[in-house]
This record gives sequence, C-alpha cells and structure tokens, in this order.
Amino acid sequence: MVVEYDGTDYCGWQRQKNGLSIQQVLEETIRLITQEKVTVFGSGRTDAGVHALNQVASFRSNTRLPAEILYRGINGLLPPDIVLKALEEVAWEFSALRDARGKVYFYRICNKRLRPALNRNYFWFIHQPLNLPLMEQAAQYLVGRHDFSCFCATGSDVKDHTRTVTSINISSVEDGLLEITIEAQGFLKYMVRNIVGTLVDVGRGKRKPSEMKEIIDSCDRNIAGITAPARGLYLKEVKY
Amino acid sequence: MVVEYDGTDYCGWQRQKNGLSIQQVLEETIRLITQEKVTVFGSGRTDAGVHALNQVASFRSNTRLPAEILYRGINGLLPPDIVLKALEEVAWEFSALRDARGKVYFYRICNKRLRPALNRNYFWFIHQPLNLPLMEQAAQYLVGRHDFSCFCATGSDVKDHTRTVTSINISSVEDGLLEITIEAQGFLKYMVRNIVGTLVDVGRGKRKPSEMKEIIDSCDRNIAGITAPARGLYLKEVKY
Repeated sequence: MVVEYDGTDYCGWQRQKNGLSIQQVLEETIRLITQEKVTVFGSGRTDAGVHALNQVASFRSNTRLPAEILYRGINGLLPPDIVLKALEEVAWEFSALRDARGKVYFYRICNKRLRPALNRNYFWFIHQPLNLPLMEQAAQYLVGRHDFSCFCATGSDVKDHTRTVTSINISSVEDGLLEITIEAQGFLKYMVRNIVGTLVDVGRGKRKPSEMKEIIDSCDRNIAGITAPARGLYLKEVKY
Repeated sequence: MVVEYDGTDYCGWQRQKNGLSIQQVLEETIRLITQEKVTVFGSGRTDAGVHALNQVASFRSNTRLPAEILYRGINGLLPPDIVLKALEEVAWEFSALRDARGKVYFYRICNKRLRPALNRNYFWFIHQPLNLPLMEQAAQYLVGRHDFSCFCATGSDVKDHTRTVTSINISSVEDGLLEITIEAQGFLKYMVRNIVGTLVDVGRGKRKPSEMKEIIDSCDRNIAGITAPARGLYLKEVKY
C-alpha cells in the first residue's frame, strides 16, 4: 500500500497505548474488510504530527478479495486524514519495513516577517530572515556516510548511528516557503528534525556552516541544534 | 485593522450565542490591551469555516497607546489562527462595514481523482473531472448588475437582491487546484458558495453554460446548484 496521511491528529505511525496511530487505523480498517486480524508494517515510523505523502506499508492476508476491491473498500472506510494512493498484491515475502532501501523526507519552513494564520499544521514558522546560501553550505557537510549520533534523539535504543545521506537540497518553493529535502538509506529517530533545527541556526547566523563538521564529529546530541517541530516534516518517498 | 484568519474552528465572523466568532476574539483581545469594551466592525460577515486573507475591521477607542503598540500587543495575545496584518489609526468617522466599496473572494477546488489526506480544511474536493472552459463560459453570465435572488441563502432578511459582479475568473493554479475569483461591490448571504456550486454543475456536465441566464432570470434559489462547502472560500480583499 502507498499511504498518504495528515499526521496532525495522530500519535504517529506506530501503535501506542495512549493515542490513536496511523497503524492502528489501517489495521482496524483492513480487518473490517477482510475479517482477519492483520499486522501492518510500515517502511518505518513517523513521529506524532509528521505527515506522509507516500508512506509504504504491507500486510499479509488470506483474503480472496481482489486488490482493487480491497483498495476501494479500505479507502471508503478510512477517515478523511488517511488515504490509500495504491494497493497491490506483492510477493508473500515482501516486507515494507525490511525491504526499504532508502527514504526521502522534506521539511517545510515558512519564513516570513509575520506568522500566517492559515495552514499552521503544515510548516514551521520562523520570522527571523534565513540565509539560504549559508544553509546550503552547511548542508553539504551532512552528505555521505557519517556517525550521526549528534542528530539522534536521546533515549533511542538503536546502537549503530552510522547512516548514509545521499543528498540534501534546500529550495525556495514560493514566496517565503523553504523546502529542505533529504535522502538517506535510513534515518535515526528525530534525525531530519534535528538536522533542520541545526541548519536553521546556521540560517539565522547563530552558527557558521563550517561548524557542521565539528557538530558531526562531536557525536554529542547536546552540541547540535533544537528539534524542529513535527508539523513541517513529510515522508515523501520510500525506495525499494 | 487588516485581519487574516483560519475559519475552521470558528462559527464565523459575527458574534453568536452558541459558538466562538472571530469578532468576539478580536473584541476580547482588544479589551485586554486597551481596558475598554469595544465593538469591532468587519467589512462584512464570513460564514463558519470561511477563511480570510485580508478582512478589514475597525473599532473606536480612546486609548493613548500608539498604533504600533496596539498592533504588537493584540497580535501577541491572539490565538494562532487569527493574526493582524496591519493596524493603523484612521478618521474617527471611518467604518470598515459602511465604507466598503467592493470585495474580492476566491474559492479553491481540489479536482483530482483521489481525495487528498492533507490540507482538507482549505478546499472543496471534487473527483469528477471539471471542464474549465465550460465553467468559464457559464461564469460570464454573472458579470454585471443582476438580481441574484437565485444565489441568495433562503431565510436571508435582505430585501434588495440586486448586486454588481465586476469580474469572475477561473484559473488552474497548480496541478489539480482550481481557483475561482469573484469581485463584486457587495455580496448576498452564501452568494459565492451558491455560484460555485452551480459552476461546478456546469463543470461536471450536469448543466449547460447557457442555463446560467435562465437560472439568474428565475430569481429562484431552488433552480440554482448546491451551496459549496465553506472551507474552500477565502475573503481576499476589501476595497474602500
């Protein structure tokens, strides 16, 4: 399945005891159609408030319903903030989680003098002017294979913090709207949001682009910038 | 004052007994700053769920606070879905309501095969393909001075339904996003939403463009199309 969702009202992708998750809604909806209890595996988790344009998820089912009927039936029952863009039958062995080879996220920043009243759940508003060329310079230090401990959420239980960032690109998509697109083979918890928080420090002039190297080398989360808010983050694509 | 607001969580511009209105929030916020009970007059009402990019509103106050302090103080206290874009002192006689000479609204339609999960509060989603040239043809019958009873909400207590539409323009602003912009010296209750509902009938092929003339001439609300949902409507500009 390819899933688009508005993360605003969810506790994130992953099932939680204290909130409604995208995963839970999908599992319950699929169960209504197939009459089977299924487990839905996503390509990875997204945090509470994070959006997805093309999250990929898979589940195993013995249903005899054709894919087209499943697709339309599930979409008919999903709430307005979750929609399937596609559903197709794949090899039984396929796992959206295990087989993911890369992911692309983008992050939206609204950079204007005055906070907008509209669309507030879809970007991070920053009123200080951001210097784009400096941010682009800083971003280039991230490309390649690095220990990204400095950008990993404290408390994450992942041991190996080495990840490969394939590309990072910052563009001004329209008047006052910046988009930071980052592709990697895999991401650590809060990695994109912590990178964005640090790039924004550079854009505001609080840090020099060359400090990015020191930050990465430090492997210390306390040296890097703040965690950018979830509402600006979008999972754009998963590669297999 | 020039006011931008996200109408999603409000019962509309006008104070109501059973819900929170933009007017009430502005009056209470201004009272906190000026210590005076004020009445805020808008250029006109907007319905529940309708947005504004540049609503104009005025109030009378004896405060000695300079406009710049009022502006920043009010903005600091307003909720995230309402923001002042400007505040300046004007002639005591000025009334945002009485002195308005014209208004521009636009209406956003998302016309794609599949409903989007994101930004749902900011457009009307229509999955049937819309024929833009036919809608444009139909729209031209609206321009000029007409009795617009057929597009006026039933139950409205306004007697004279004659209004002058200065221009109407339909454009495809990006892939799958249509914008219908309409300017008039004044509008009736639900007028833009009823016009949009009828133009969409034409776009879907349910009516011919030439039927617009018959609809207007009928002066009968039952002959025109449905009322388009509030969430796609934006007050763009008020002219003085």
